[in-house]
Amino acid sequence: MTKKYLLALLFITQSMVSCSVADDVDPLPSWNKGSSRDSIIAFVEAVTDKTNVDYVPTIERVAVFDNDGTLWSEQPLYFQFYYALEQLANAADAHPEWSDQEPFKTALGGVRDDILALGTKGLVEIILTTHSGMTNAEFGQSVKDWIASAEHPTTQRPFSQMVFQPMLELLDYLRANEFEVYIVSGGGVEFMRAIARGIYGVPPENTIGSNLGMKLEETDSGLVLRRMAEINFINDKAGKPVGIQRAIGRRPIFAFGNSDGDLQMLQWTAAGDGRSFAGIVHHTDADREWAYDRESHLGRLDKALDEGRNRGWTIVDMKSEWAVIYPPER
Amino acid sequence: MTKKYLLALLFITQSMVSCSVADDVDPLPSWNKGSSRDSIIAFVEAVTDKTNVDYVPTIERVAVFDNDGTLWSEQPLYFQFYYALEQLANAADAHPEWSDQEPFKTALGGVRDDILALGTKGLVEIILTTHSGMTNAEFGQSVKDWIASAEHPTTQRPFSQMVFQPMLELLDYLRANEFEVYIVSGGGVEFMRAIARGIYGVPPENTIGSNLGMKLEETDSGLVLRRMAEINFINDKAGKPVGIQRAIGRRPIFAFGNSDGDLQMLQWTAAGDGRSFAGIVHHTDADREWAYDRESHLGRLDKALDEGRNRGWTIVDMKSEWAVIYPPER
Repeated sequence: MTKKYLLALLFITQSMVSCSVADDVDPLPSWNKGSSRDSIIAFVEAVTDKTNVDYVPTIERVAVFDNDGTLWSEQPLYFQFYYALEQLANAADAHPEWSDQEPFKTALGGVRDDILALGTKGLVEIILTTHSGMTNAEFGQSVKDWIASAEHPTTQRPFSQMVFQPMLELLDYLRANEFEVYIVSGGGVEFMRAIARGIYGVPPENTIGSNLGMKLEETDSGLVLRRMAEINFINDKAGKPVGIQRAIGRRPIFAFGNSDGDLQMLQWTAAGDGRSFAGIVHHTDADREWAYDRESHLGRLDKALDEGRNRGWTIVDMKSEWAVIYPPER
Repeated sequence: MTKKYLLALLFITQSMVSCSVADDVDPLPSWNKGSSRDSIIAFVEAVTDKTNVDYVPTIERVAVFDNDGTLWSEQPLYFQFYYALEQLANAADAHPEWSDQEPFKTALGGVRDDILALGTKGLVEIILTTHSGMTNAEFGQSVKDWIASAEHPTTQRPFSQMVFQPMLELLDYLRANEFEVYIVSGGGVEFMRAIARGIYGVPPENTIGSNLGMKLEETDSGLVLRRMAEINFINDKAGKPVGIQRAIGRRPIFAFGNSDGDLQMLQWTAAGDGRSFAGIVHHTDADREWAYDRESHLGRLDKALDEGRNRGWTIVDMKSEWAVIYPPER
């Protein structure tokens, strides 16, 4: 047996082994067999197969995911809001005037429906009060400290464990197929960055979100980036395609959302030249998670549900299509 | 000889070959031997050597480069301005009123010093007039069409060939050492994106710059991103660290600029916790390129030159340290 022959044999054997491994391991074990799972796999196999007319070069394989309600739960309040409420509570002693000043009085009361009833103006004031003034680094550390111990008020699970196991598998599956995976959240970009690497494996440069004004400031301890009490950009609805263009400079070929806030991102993705994938998580599981759509105050899914059905987008029925919702308890 | 032994031998031989190739090929052939070249190589070798106290994991190897005057020439006017002037000239027939209306009259006259004398207000009006109204896709195509044929007014080289050969080598050297390379330009981000992949190998998601307002719009031919006649963000001076944070979410460890507009980006990079590199291209070569610094209207290098000297940053003397300026003529 010559060395050349042996090497040829080696490479053939390696190829066979690697094919066989890929075929044996189910990349989406928490997705029940069904139309959503099929459509995801059919799309990924088509755009990664060089012989397929829909093949997409790796550099153009951009996938975008909404966060709240798509990658993790968003009920009974967006999780970022629990962070804000905890910060308010921590600061309340230093602000006795809040006890009879709105929106702080209601926020400190902690009743979900009352808090939602504060409306956009009140909610924005709570966010600006708790998310600005400090440096960007201080804010990120504060979010990391919070996520390390904070628990969800109704499930008592750590918020970090209320991510959707089927979506974690989908992120991994796409990355294994050389997609660049981005989070495109209506939530604050620096809040997301502080947690996204740890819970989703998504690095800060792939995390897009709403943001506040920020300025470079010279302090006694050197240069800092200071967070300002003003909204700079809302990465929601028609803002999502703008946020995507500003950060990525390309149109995605794969998008997943769960609410009307994601409609334009899904439309923008679906309107590209080549084959694309648009998916919606439909919260239909009142037992294991929450069930809500057209009438919900948070994460309303109405227009996007109609458009998704009309256009044949992939609409995930959480109750029947997800074998598990959350990762196993640690 | 067993198969196992043969394989071991194969891998050892491959390692030896790859080491030997790496040692033999000079990664920076257009950099003369000297302090700038030495400091670049010393930095890269330190942060990529796992046994070195200054080792930096690949995920944190973020390098940022200014564009105008750092990666390509910027005299006698920023090249983006030649694009704007050509667009104005193309549109002039449809705008007879421009012949006696400023800043258009002076811009169409084409005299460099008169154009610079228009000041910020006039220059911004020229940019807004020529860079907004169309869709983002149309704008990108227009820039690509322009760069494919436009020539520099004094050298008659294509603008795309007025990139600095030593800097092209530096970009490649950093990427070969698993740095993620970003452009952080005061110029327009979509202008840069239309050309940066072709001339620098930098993809759109790694290109940061100034930008205009942008909105999603429904048209007869579908959704478009429309460029608005308003400035959204100026990515210059104290704006550069803000632009970097918004887009990357991390502090760079390596930065290169050439003017006072890059001072804060260099300071921000140098103020990181670990070892960092801050470099300045000093335009000292009136024969092969241009010579200018403290008194220049474009690309003024004054405060950053002082600070760079005080802090021991790497200041490249273009005349003595660069063996060639531009790539060989095609």
